[in-house]
Amino acid sequence: MTSHPTLTVTTGPLPASTKAFRPGVLYPDMRVPMREIALHPSAAEPPVTVYDCSGPYTDPGAEIAIERGLSRLREGWVASRRDTEAYEGRPVQPADNGFVSPDGLTPVFPAPHRPMRAKEGKAVTQIAYARAGIVTPEMEFVAIRENLGRKAIREKMARDGEMYGASVPDYVTPEFVRDEVARGRAVIPANINHSELEPMIIGRNFLVKINANIGNSAVTSSMAEEVEKMVWAIRWGADTVMDLSTGRNIHNIREWIVRNAPVPIGTVPIYQALEKVSGVVEDLTWEIFRDTLIEQSEQGVDYFTIHAGVLLRHIPLTVNRVTGIVSRGGSIMAKWCLHHHRESFLYEHFEEICEIARAYDVTFSLGDGLRPGCIADANDAAQFAELETLGELTQIAWKHDCQVMIEGPGHVPMHKIKENMDKQLEVCGEAPFYTLGPLTTDIAPGYDHITSGIGAAMIGWFGTAMLCYVTPKEHLGLPDRDDVKTGVITYKIAAHAADLAKGHPAAKIRDDALSRARFEFRWEDQFNLSLDPDTARSFHDQTLPKEAHKVAHFCSMCGPKFCSMKISHDIREEARAQAGMVEMAKRYRDGGDLYIPVEEDAVGS
Amino acid sequence: MTSHPTLTVTTGPLPASTKAFRPGVLYPDMRVPMREIALHPSAAEPPVTVYDCSGPYTDPGAEIAIERGLSRLREGWVASRRDTEAYEGRPVQPADNGFVSPDGLTPVFPAPHRPMRAKEGKAVTQIAYARAGIVTPEMEFVAIRENLGRKAIREKMARDGEMYGASVPDYVTPEFVRDEVARGRAVIPANINHSELEPMIIGRNFLVKINANIGNSAVTSSMAEEVEKMVWAIRWGADTVMDLSTGRNIHNIREWIVRNAPVPIGTVPIYQALEKVSGVVEDLTWEIFRDTLIEQSEQGVDYFTIHAGVLLRHIPLTVNRVTGIVSRGGSIMAKWCLHHHRESFLYEHFEEICEIARAYDVTFSLGDGLRPGCIADANDAAQFAELETLGELTQIAWKHDCQVMIEGPGHVPMHKIKENMDKQLEVCGEAPFYTLGPLTTDIAPGYDHITSGIGAAMIGWFGTAMLCYVTPKEHLGLPDRDDVKTGVITYKIAAHAADLAKGHPAAKIRDDALSRARFEFRWEDQFNLSLDPDTARSFHDQTLPKEAHKVAHFCSMCGPKFCSMKISHDIREEARAQAGMVEMAKRYRDGGDLYIPVEEDAVGS
Repeated sequence: MTSHPTLTVTTGPLPASTKAFRPGVLYPDMRVPMREIALHPSAAEPPVTVYDCSGPYTDPGAEIAIERGLSRLREGWVASRRDTEAYEGRPVQPADNGFVSPDGLTPVFPAPHRPMRAKEGKAVTQIAYARAGIVTPEMEFVAIRENLGRKAIREKMARDGEMYGASVPDYVTPEFVRDEVARGRAVIPANINHSELEPMIIGRNFLVKINANIGNSAVTSSMAEEVEKMVWAIRWGADTVMDLSTGRNIHNIREWIVRNAPVPIGTVPIYQALEKVSGVVEDLTWEIFRDTLIEQSEQGVDYFTIHAGVLLRHIPLTVNRVTGIVSRGGSIMAKWCLHHHRESFLYEHFEEICEIARAYDVTFSLGDGLRPGCIADANDAAQFAELETLGELTQIAWKHDCQVMIEGPGHVPMHKIKENMDKQLEVCGEAPFYTLGPLTTDIAPGYDHITSGIGAAMIGWFGTAMLCYVTPKEHLGLPDRDDVKTGVITYKIAAHAADLAKGHPAAKIRDDALSRARFEFRWEDQFNLSLDPDTARSFHDQTLPKEAHKVAHFCSMCGPKFCSMKISHDIREEARAQAGMVEMAKRYRDGGDLYIPVEEDAVGS
Repeated sequence: MTSHPTLTVTTGPLPASTKAFRPGVLYPDMRVPMREIALHPSAAEPPVTVYDCSGPYTDPGAEIAIERGLSRLREGWVASRRDTEAYEGRPVQPADNGFVSPDGLTPVFPAPHRPMRAKEGKAVTQIAYARAGIVTPEMEFVAIRENLGRKAIREKMARDGEMYGASVPDYVTPEFVRDEVARGRAVIPANINHSELEPMIIGRNFLVKINANIGNSAVTSSMAEEVEKMVWAIRWGADTVMDLSTGRNIHNIREWIVRNAPVPIGTVPIYQALEKVSGVVEDLTWEIFRDTLIEQSEQGVDYFTIHAGVLLRHIPLTVNRVTGIVSRGGSIMAKWCLHHHRESFLYEHFEEICEIARAYDVTFSLGDGLRPGCIADANDAAQFAELETLGELTQIAWKHDCQVMIEGPGHVPMHKIKENMDKQLEVCGEAPFYTLGPLTTDIAPGYDHITSGIGAAMIGWFGTAMLCYVTPKEHLGLPDRDDVKTGVITYKIAAHAADLAKGHPAAKIRDDALSRARFEFRWEDQFNLSLDPDTARSFHDQTLPKEAHKVAHFCSMCGPKFCSMKISHDIREEARAQAGMVEMAKRYRDGGDLYIPVEEDAVGS
């Protein structure tokens, strides 16, 4: 490939937003991105700082060219540790792209990099460094990122929440990050070959994160479309993106995605392995799977879903389920085990898998291949038997200095959600939980972002570290651009509601700023502070389109006469004017006499 | 008015659905409507019976003509009690329609009825009958309605849930209904002048209900539009509808709504009272309010929101709130109290209000005028002070044989939701709680059906009896038809998720039927069993439009090769073929030896 037309993706800042960069202290060259939302001058408030996972795409100062990829800020960090080496890498084979014919082949990414791997005997994982007492640049980066405006508001913070055993600190220090990573309670998915990454952390003592899934379909998707899906998902707030591609061109498209991704990219390697054996499950082998892990590790995939907890002995437990096995990876492995009547090669070779993960710092996301696929199957013997196996595997991964998180359900009615969280914490040694939903009822296909958003908010509150989104198309079809956005916003709501309920020290800042804007009729500020300013503005403008209405002291719902907020302002003024009003309130709170006691008697009349 | 062109509203059954009617035992002429969803013959399952609040509009056998109104099935029930009398009624005045000019007047409903009221000294409320040991037709009607298919599945029911102190019975008898109404733990909103009503019950030992708000705007709405809004909302599952109209033609439009409503209609009478004094809050008087109550009682309004808990002494508690008073009724009353520096006339005259309510059986919905309007104000002194006053008023209403429910917040972060429910149960003697959301974060205008759907599901689980919906337009604009539907479906999800979590005996039937359909690739059944079959079908058809795909053993998400459900079927067959598989599973569960123990050693290699 010599040249490409410039391929465009969505760029530009969100409304009223500018990119701000914070330097490191240990690593002063570091520039940690934040988004600052400016408010109307009448607010007399500083900008509101929010977490920003959108990468350079929302930075008007950044030059975006997807055929070049993003700048590789971590290259120097990795190199300076002197424990890695560049090497030739595994040659790309026809099987890697699903045996696609040459004219159907997605163009090779035009700016290739030689892969890096750990030098013989070295562990290049964040957990290995953390255990050795080293605070890496990645750790300082995430510490700064997590704090948002916390330092500035430190004094006036009143912590208020229920953490269910989590220990969210008032202020995140790099040392706190190191400690959480060292004890396996948090992960920083950051493959040494993903230099374009802006590091982030997943753990229950940090902000709750969300993942969005993308992936080409068997039919068609160009690399530009897939990159745009990723850019679109992170624009609205996806903290990580999983590439669940199946079919052809998987290898080449993945390269385009990773080279342009400022967020961690996750995959399910068994999907590609299955393509390599033309979809014949029985033909899968450890060798093909191993080769796929190396292929993807060299590309820079940050986390792998590995369904190593589906054991031969678990399969009979699923036979009487209402919906059997609903995880694709889980069903593939179950079929393989059953056909060969052997134990899963993922389980048997798990220590070798760990060695690969350690050589590139690929984080494990231990898959819940037996997650329930309906309300009836929730919290059953199959699910919990697998979870216990995942607990064993966690210990093995930790022994090998690998980072681990654990995937969770699925479909769970509300009263069974907490049991999932408690059991996961107990059997998996507090490794971060990463759940899909859960959906709290089965009866609303078309609205499963909502059925699952309810469960996601709750399990996030109880301790889940990352929530995998569900779109309105779940169970029905392939999500389009609007579905991806709806899924991401719904899950940002769930994650934020969980942060609020946990009493995360900085979470409420944005709610309060938006509520003040609402009370003061600063419509533009309301839109700009919301998770989706475009939708908020367009909904408002459907009824009151004129610019003048953006400063109106009422809205279309009640009109000026019935506006409670407007009346509330009158009340506030009147109340303040009336001498002693506040004093009265105090007396009331203290249990003193009320005013006009004579009128109280009228109640009985 | 002599004649009208026929005004059309949405009619016709939902897909694969027929209306079934169950007779009463005590009252054998009674026909209680249910919806039966037919399944594909290959399912070999009986139809799934679901609760049906859509009224005659979904009955192909019913003739709908909104200028005539629905048939008046309760007329005979009320008459047979011989404790009511017909009378002339209050003449309609120009103020009732907001002083609209004659050419702007909405046509008078063409088939008027003389109002009924209690005979001197009689209490014609369901609670009065219940306390007297009388099982009314209304009580038997709701008992049959609540049971759904419970009797048929009685034996195989395995109760599974957490009720937080509620006592949902295995089977609802008319006597159980009577008892719950007698002790005030449930209400049957059923004005004696709303003969068109199909009675329903609100209480935490019954299915969780939802309310949808409609209402004309100051700008324009015809009576046909308003009736259609109501019909549309109940088609998708609204159990009650509140008419929150302001502006002109309130009286005439309300008459059209009530005459065509098979569900209870609620109002906030202070809105109309304020129109009668041209929006000047200070000019409100008890006399004008009282007159409005009688006007609406004669029309057949089933429940009134009365903000009688906003007391003068509470107002100072709101002064330092982030968003002050956000209830319209609450802010109106607060302004009135403050201006006159007198106690609320609603509070002072509450016993007279009870007398009116008792004469027509209008249920109270005691308004939470001081509900929090943002996360920062949740569970504050103002909110809880008002709640205590509502508890006092509940006792007064009960003393007068009036039915009561209590309105609740609002905006509440997840960790403060349960406190609301517990406090309400404690101070209001278990009178049914009726909550708006609550919204679990403030940062997502445009998605407040979701921010509040999360809170609604939770508080419904904890014990709220009815959930007031929130649409995507909340805080931004007037909901349109799509917004109403989205709001209703979201709240049906929340209510159903709550029923499941409470372990309601019949709730899971529909989930299980849909999940079986999903596992067996009965796509049509999946669509038809869902809350919104049209959306489910259209989402599916966006990717796989052909009819042949409706029987395909895969879907567009994974394609045939990766379909976990398909693989699961293979597994199931293979597992069953392998002798002793189920036996093996049993041994595993019993803690016996597993198979292929030799391979287990491989893990450590």
